[in-house]
Amino acid sequence: MGKVLMKGNEVIAEAAVHAGCKYFFGYPITPQSELVAYMARRLPEVGGLFLQAESEIAAINMVYGAAGTGVRVMTSSSSPGFSLKQEGISYLVGSELPALICNIVRGGPGLGNIQPAQSDYFQVTKGGGHGDYNIPVLAPASLQEIVELTQDAFDIADRYRTPVILMGDGMLGQMMEPVEFREREKALIDEKEWATTGTRGDGGPRIITSLELDAESLEQRNWKLQKKFATIKENEVRYETYQVDDADYIMVAYGTVARIAMNSINQARQKGVKVGLIRPISLWPFPEKPFIETRDQVKAFISVEMSAGQMIEDVRLAVNGHAPVDFFGRTGGVVPTQEEIYDKIMTVAGGVNV
Amino acid sequence: MGKVLMKGNEVIAEAAVHAGCKYFFGYPITPQSELVAYMARRLPEVGGLFLQAESEIAAINMVYGAAGTGVRVMTSSSSPGFSLKQEGISYLVGSELPALICNIVRGGPGLGNIQPAQSDYFQVTKGGGHGDYNIPVLAPASLQEIVELTQDAFDIADRYRTPVILMGDGMLGQMMEPVEFREREKALIDEKEWATTGTRGDGGPRIITSLELDAESLEQRNWKLQKKFATIKENEVRYETYQVDDADYIMVAYGTVARIAMNSINQARQKGVKVGLIRPISLWPFPEKPFIETRDQVKAFISVEMSAGQMIEDVRLAVNGHAPVDFFGRTGGVVPTQEEIYDKIMTVAGGVNV
Amino acid sequence: MGKVLMKGNEVIAEAAVHAGCKYFFGYPITPQSELVAYMARRLPEVGGLFLQAESEIAAINMVYGAAGTGVRVMTSSSSPGFSLKQEGISYLVGSELPALICNIVRGGPGLGNIQPAQSDYFQVTKGGGHGDYNIPVLAPASLQEIVELTQDAFDIADRYRTPVILMGDGMLGQMMEPVEFREREKALIDEKEWATTGTRGDGGPRIITSLELDAESLEQRNWKLQKKFATIKENEVRYETYQVDDADYIMVAYGTVARIAMNSINQARQKGVKVGLIRPISLWPFPEKPFIETRDQVKAFISVEMSAGQMIEDVRLAVNGHAPVDFFGRTGGVVPTQEEIYDKIMTVAGGVNV
Amino acid sequence: MGKVLMKGNEVIAEAAVHAGCKYFFGYPITPQSELVAYMARRLPEVGGLFLQAESEIAAINMVYGAAGTGVRVMTSSSSPGFSLKQEGISYLVGSELPALICNIVRGGPGLGNIQPAQSDYFQVTKGGGHGDYNIPVLAPASLQEIVELTQDAFDIADRYRTPVILMGDGMLGQMMEPVEFREREKALIDEKEWATTGTRGDGGPRIITSLELDAESLEQRNWKLQKKFATIKENEVRYETYQVDDADYIMVAYGTVARIAMNSINQARQKGVKVGLIRPISLWPFPEKPFIETRDQVKAFISVEMSAGQMIEDVRLAVNGHAPVDFFGRTGGVVPTQEEIYDKIMTVAGGVNV
Repeated sequence: MGKVLMKGNEVIAEAAVHAGCKYFFGYPITPQSELVAYMARRLPEVGGLFLQAESEIAAINMVYGAAGTGVRVMTSSSSPGFSLKQEGISYLVGSELPALICNIVRGGPGLGNIQPAQSDYFQVTKGGGHGDYNIPVLAPASLQEIVELTQDAFDIADRYRTPVILMGDGMLGQMMEPVEFREREKALIDEKEWATTGTRGDGGPRIITSLELDAESLEQRNWKLQKKFATIKENEVRYETYQVDDADYIMVAYGTVARIAMNSINQARQKGVKVGLIRPISLWPFPEKPFIETRDQVKAFISVEMSAGQMIEDVRLAVNGHAPVDFFGRTGGVVPTQEEIYDKIMTVAGGVNV
Repeated sequence: MGKVLMKGNEVIAEAAVHAGCKYFFGYPITPQSELVAYMARRLPEVGGLFLQAESEIAAINMVYGAAGTGVRVMTSSSSPGFSLKQEGISYLVGSELPALICNIVRGGPGLGNIQPAQSDYFQVTKGGGHGDYNIPVLAPASLQEIVELTQDAFDIADRYRTPVILMGDGMLGQMMEPVEFREREKALIDEKEWATTGTRGDGGPRIITSLELDAESLEQRNWKLQKKFATIKENEVRYETYQVDDADYIMVAYGTVARIAMNSINQARQKGVKVGLIRPISLWPFPEKPFIETRDQVKAFISVEMSAGQMIEDVRLAVNGHAPVDFFGRTGGVVPTQEEIYDKIMTVAGGVNV
Repeated sequence: MGKVLMKGNEVIAEAAVHAGCKYFFGYPITPQSELVAYMARRLPEVGGLFLQAESEIAAINMVYGAAGTGVRVMTSSSSPGFSLKQEGISYLVGSELPALICNIVRGGPGLGNIQPAQSDYFQVTKGGGHGDYNIPVLAPASLQEIVELTQDAFDIADRYRTPVILMGDGMLGQMMEPVEFREREKALIDEKEWATTGTRGDGGPRIITSLELDAESLEQRNWKLQKKFATIKENEVRYETYQVDDADYIMVAYGTVARIAMNSINQARQKGVKVGLIRPISLWPFPEKPFIETRDQVKAFISVEMSAGQMIEDVRLAVNGHAPVDFFGRTGGVVPTQEEIYDKIMTVAGGVNV
Repeated sequence: MGKVLMKGNEVIAEAAVHAGCKYFFGYPITPQSELVAYMARRLPEVGGLFLQAESEIAAINMVYGAAGTGVRVMTSSSSPGFSLKQEGISYLVGSELPALICNIVRGGPGLGNIQPAQSDYFQVTKGGGHGDYNIPVLAPASLQEIVELTQDAFDIADRYRTPVILMGDGMLGQMMEPVEFREREKALIDEKEWATTGTRGDGGPRIITSLELDAESLEQRNWKLQKKFATIKENEVRYETYQVDDADYIMVAYGTVARIAMNSINQARQKGVKVGLIRPISLWPFPEKPFIETRDQVKAFISVEMSAGQMIEDVRLAVNGHAPVDFFGRTGGVVPTQEEIYDKIMTVAGGVNV
């Protein structure tokens, strides 16, 4: 199978199918409905099941149920719908169930609009649900990267028994690019010894629950979870850097914004301004290493977001006072242009910004 | 009316009534059900309305509807129920509607248990819902403080047209202390010119919505919201310090944990260890000032939480690399003891901690 | 207060308010939404409460809850929404709770359309819900009659501790006629000794439930209910006759159809055909007496319905083989014309029907 | 496969599987939960799908969706849950969708209890939902008859594009008897040309809906439906008679009550009282023929029910005044004994009873 031209939302769906995902439970919401529609048509072809639930809450709880049987399962939504899933997501974490949850972010808060945004950064990285937890969050910047990260997401989910979030903005969901689906080895351990598939008398019952009435026991579970989060933090950090070695200024951006920022960087370098880019691919765990390696050499970091200043907190935590951290953002569905980001660079660099 | 002995959950309810709250929509969940039950009995006495909704989601949306008419209204829940309200909370912010939302935090994630916890810190301070927003969060440490903060919460809600969160742990909800309800002036502007109470032809229609399909317009709304958040950050920071002036070590704790920590501090000071406390009362906006004033003098900060390390991020952001930040926490419903915290101090201070 | 010109749906609402109804829980559905809208505006004026529930099921269960406190309460819907209330209605009967439920019938089955119909006759008279029960059903034919019957409905509900159904077709809900609201004595026994309003230690707890796990006990409750139904059957039969004394043919029609049929009768009598009308006002209990009094003298009865033949069963039961029973009906939202009904009479009468 | 000993609820499930049913959507309720549990285990074995929905309403609407694709699908419930399905059932009729719906009737009204009853007779035969419609209702009296009728039910459903109700009392669901599953030809036309399985450009779109906004068009659909009901009435009447040829008295009973009544009849005949039985197997269409054939010869009919007098109306309609119609019933979960029914016979026969 060579390269095919597809829409971002469909690429997520097809990549999930390639990763062995056979179950999808969801509820349509713009701008990710193509993903839902694609799954409705596609999953029966591979002997899987698509079900449009009667609400976002029903959908995430169906994911919980299916995940408990050890199959690869996913749901998808956009910002308001994603908020409705917070209880269910916390339950998935508490019960240590693998699943893929997509959030194709749109302008908020509230009903907002259906334009691209990144304003759910806090919600996905700091825990929109209750309790102490972290969830791996992957943020692709191209459609081919969607293919890879979707498959990685399922592998991470299975490896650590955890939900994984794939986060994109509406632009990524709607754009078309040629992609290639390469077959690859699945990390999935087919026999999940914890799955509640029925023991039929052979071995004791398997129980999946997040309930633990005894405080000491729940604390032990929590420290065990924290230990798992620490392992993920050690193993699953992903990022890309661009021209950071000699950089006086480093931009930080993820997703489609990072692609635009690269053009701004090229433009600035033509003017002699040495600027680079750190692109977090895993939003959690956040890549601290490239910051630690560069924070004592650069004059400033600039967090560039389609939000009002959320990732900047993680940047500031990673920089930890070693350099100033500046910010440029657009919100409400407005996508920053190459020129705007270029202007920001020039302003920060003290240059004339036309 | 002199001092009366009451349970924390009931104090919240009675304080709300004193603040002019006449409407409560909620759904029972341990450990805050006394609050719901109290309101069911109490509100009809003041000509108000209590309604037990059919779900947490119904409840928060009823709050939305009532808030739109300009009345003082509240809801209350505990962690899993609070997660279910995230979409509605984001809508309240987006539509700029005043309301009080209580979260009496219990052990999580998932179903967890019904013991006291503080593990929803991220959820309430970083935005559990979607979109760029902040919500004022007040965290009382005593029942008398509940009285004051509940009234303040309604004032802040009305002054800024914003939901406000009152966050307590289950211990605070269940403990009994004598409290006094002092009458005080309400900040409430009785005639809310934006309230959709019906104009009956006099003036154009009033519209309350978080929908804004045009990206430029939504962005303008967002910057206006951000400006409001900045104003709140300037005016509504609350905290208490305890023996920080000469402190070599500063603990950071809120709610009931802060009360326990004070005893540990006294114990440590008797051993000659100079330790103090910063108690954030507003979790958002987080009090940066006492950290800036002390961070160059202390040897270390210690964030003490009934969570696995959440507030520590705000502490680190406030300290910004000027001093090390250490952590001590218990989770899953386990309340840290005075002795444990004392031991932690002594360890950090390099002392022998028996 | 003299005569006012109002819409049928609004007349029901205003008449309910005059009857002392202060509580309305509902969900909008065409063609009865004016009733809901009227109540939303009107009830607060009388210190009452209007609540738009999140579903028909939520609404009927809120009615259940409010009815349990002894207040006068109502809900309203149209055919599909009325179907959704069937469980709740059965619960009201089982728990012996007074309430008014309106069904402004539209074309069915399924989604159908929003035109007038009478095709829920079986549903309201034979019990759309489960279990052995009957509910008094009143079917007004004019707006002034709505005023009277709405008030009667609340009186019957309170007198027998039973839900009562007010059934109209969409035409009745939409038409405008002058009506007069006369004050009248309420039959409501203000102190309902069974109402769960809180005994505060004075007397044992009051319990309202339809649960009775023991079969013998449930049977006793059922025979007690049946005895109540028998009493209602004895006391609450309502009907009107028109020119039946010398009639060779008797039409049977209710609601707006009866008004049209009267014109057809006048037209037929001008041609020398002796035809009369029995208009059931209470659909349950169905008026058997006028049939027994006439069934041995007439050549045929004709059931005229905006349904495919439902009331005809009750007519046949009342006639019990003493005379033929014919049928004329229109369905799907089509209202029979005077001419059509006249033609039917002439056909049955063996005459030439133009 | 020879005879196997099974529980009634399980027999329904296995018979459905034998009839080619691969899809079950339901929600557990006593006394039919074994059926749900059986399907949860069984359907995956045949490549089917079991889904426990989040409510009865969700379940019936999932049945609607699945039925639209032409597969054999079913749901099951008991009285209160069945009431909740009324809107969905009316939609199935209006959209002409085949499906099997079981009602294992329990004591009502309201919550009632979980003992056997027949008190949903009106609900299933007269239309618990809105609009003009009838649904074929089959009432087996033994477990082997369940096998046959379940398969017949699916055939009838497909042949006429209609939902079919299988109605049993809780006793039938709980009893165990040996049954044999004989393979038989399915009437199912595999290629349902109306099914919305996707035409992929080949032919125009297929639309399944019960919406028809134009009154004339909806009326045409209704008359077409009525014509279908008439055809079903002509072809699908089922009943059994027992010793009616010389009978002076005829009992009418269905389901398990009919089995008990047969014993009472034998007992009475030993005393010389000539009594027979008509057992309706199809409750709708109700078998009029055996009544017409016997009504001029018998001294009385006796409707024997586990309800307070519901089927008696259909008996009276069928007898149409040619003979008296008497009644004996137990309600609330009480099952009539052989002795009680015998006593009733003797009383009606004018004999000394006891």
